[in-house]
Amino acid sequence: MDPVNLKKLAKQLNLSISTVSRALRDSYEISQETKDKVLSLANELNYQPNPYASSLRKHKSKTIAVVVPEIANNFFSLAINGIGSVAQEKGYHVLIYLTHEDFTQEASIIRHLQSGRVDGVLISLSSETSDIAHLLELRQKGLPIVFFDRVCESIETAKVTTDDFESSFKATEHLIEQGCTRIAYLHISKNLSIGIKRMQGYQEALYKHNIKFDESLVVHAGNDNEENHAMVKALLSREDRPDGIFASVEKLAIAAYHVCRELSLSIPGDVKIISFSNLETASLLNPSLTTITQPAFDIGREAATVMFRALDKNKIHIDNERIVLGASLVVRDSTGNNT
Amino acid sequence: MDPVNLKKLAKQLNLSISTVSRALRDSYEISQETKDKVLSLANELNYQPNPYASSLRKHKSKTIAVVVPEIANNFFSLAINGIGSVAQEKGYHVLIYLTHEDFTQEASIIRHLQSGRVDGVLISLSSETSDIAHLLELRQKGLPIVFFDRVCESIETAKVTTDDFESSFKATEHLIEQGCTRIAYLHISKNLSIGIKRMQGYQEALYKHNIKFDESLVVHAGNDNEENHAMVKALLSREDRPDGIFASVEKLAIAAYHVCRELSLSIPGDVKIISFSNLETASLLNPSLTTITQPAFDIGREAATVMFRALDKNKIHIDNERIVLGASLVVRDSTGNNT
Repeated sequence: MDPVNLKKLAKQLNLSISTVSRALRDSYEISQETKDKVLSLANELNYQPNPYASSLRKHKSKTIAVVVPEIANNFFSLAINGIGSVAQEKGYHVLIYLTHEDFTQEASIIRHLQSGRVDGVLISLSSETSDIAHLLELRQKGLPIVFFDRVCESIETAKVTTDDFESSFKATEHLIEQGCTRIAYLHISKNLSIGIKRMQGYQEALYKHNIKFDESLVVHAGNDNEENHAMVKALLSREDRPDGIFASVEKLAIAAYHVCRELSLSIPGDVKIISFSNLETASLLNPSLTTITQPAFDIGREAATVMFRALDKNKIHIDNERIVLGASLVVRDSTGNNT
Repeated sequence: MDPVNLKKLAKQLNLSISTVSRALRDSYEISQETKDKVLSLANELNYQPNPYASSLRKHKSKTIAVVVPEIANNFFSLAINGIGSVAQEKGYHVLIYLTHEDFTQEASIIRHLQSGRVDGVLISLSSETSDIAHLLELRQKGLPIVFFDRVCESIETAKVTTDDFESSFKATEHLIEQGCTRIAYLHISKNLSIGIKRMQGYQEALYKHNIKFDESLVVHAGNDNEENHAMVKALLSREDRPDGIFASVEKLAIAAYHVCRELSLSIPGDVKIISFSNLETASLLNPSLTTITQPAFDIGREAATVMFRALDKNKIHIDNERIVLGASLVVRDSTGNNT
């Protein structure tokens, strides 16, 4: 069968190739009636535009990219589902790219996206990202960006987050109210604003309750599960080990559970644990895990909604806007009273 | 004899390769006269037109697509990481597409990929897929496909799976050896070969141990977590409820855990549970979950390795090949002795 190309569409519609091309690009020079006719035949014949055409920038690819650090983290898989739910309503495809928390990969992916294969980019930064040249370049190429969860403060666009400072404060205060006095904080980023805000929330709660901040109780974890495990094990093997652990991501809480088993430490008897987490099995763990649960699906939905509002208007620059969705403290047995 | 390729045609006609290529693609940029000359020589020399192959070589997108049903399933997130590890070595980007277990979305994504935005497609089918026209079309367009985990038997290409029949047999036999006589099987696909093989393994183990197959103990779950929960609850609320549950995906085992709590059924006292799962928290659950654990990362690595072997050679059709990686039975407390 002949490929369905612009020529074929033009011939069947008795229009010029350039008119068909402009109709497909939603050009203002073409009447709505003509556009409807062209689109209808293009759909009927399953016309696929060549993504390598230099004119692609003007074509809507009907695709958005979602760039995330990892997917073996329930927050991101839920947020992606939230984004997907809006994209599906809009008839858009969603491309997911993983940076594996690696700055080099993030930069490479973002440069790859500059070629115009997508109409917009939703991104949650890798924990290593401090240089933002790749993001500025993307904006210069005219691609709208929306940040979610791990945002870049200095780029003017929409940012959808949870209330990181308040949530972190609440988590730390909960441990204090449950009797903890030596609270360790396990986190994965000191560069990103999310990391800074969460650290401030932790410190502020300690300050409010007259507990001296002890830097040795702060563990900067990385992307290597074995190393993280070793760091948590070293922390819990100390003679002056913490009696409370606040984990900023669920994989660090899971590491703490494993370490407590190895060291025969009781949760919550010896150590109480709370974590930012969307873990589906939080309530089924032994003991069940107290969590700060972010509205991950809604964060994804909100980020996608802002993006499509811009795409619908052919807007390249999205207004600087911060949308904050509150997280919930779900108290379970891991921070229960000593028994 | 030299292969008749574009270069040879171009040389004999004293035209550029690009002109010959465009003539063969019936491009509107080329005159009818030139097209006639090119076609005539192509016929004479018995040139096998494979326009896609040449365009593939020309426009290596350095990108592969991975199409999976969902990512909130640790099998898929690990397999994607396995694929990513090979792609990174090769300098390729990985695009991830989610079908959400929905056939319509799968078909739409596959048609979208026909436009040549990627060099190859690795896919694990949605549980609803029975029609394979979209996959055949993709192959016709000259895109190499590799199936992993949920494969399509009737398409000739490489298929990387686990030993589904044997694993399912082993899981069922383990429950029988632990004293179960009424074993329910929770699964999500009756169409796909993976579903059929796992069902056969289950039935074969029952048969070997002289346990009559009871169709009412087979639950066909879907994509809606609430509905799945209700089905499992109905199953465990029956007077003749099962004393063993074998779940083919981890989300159904999690549903069973929740239902057991609601109904105050003890695991493993009242019901023993085993599941195909790569759940990171399996050993931390209350009680810890006995699993059939697939080598998910290696399955991803293997599938990607086969794909890149083909891409390196510019091969469009990958040889029909089945690569089977064994799964492990990891016995934990959920199938322990009644206490």
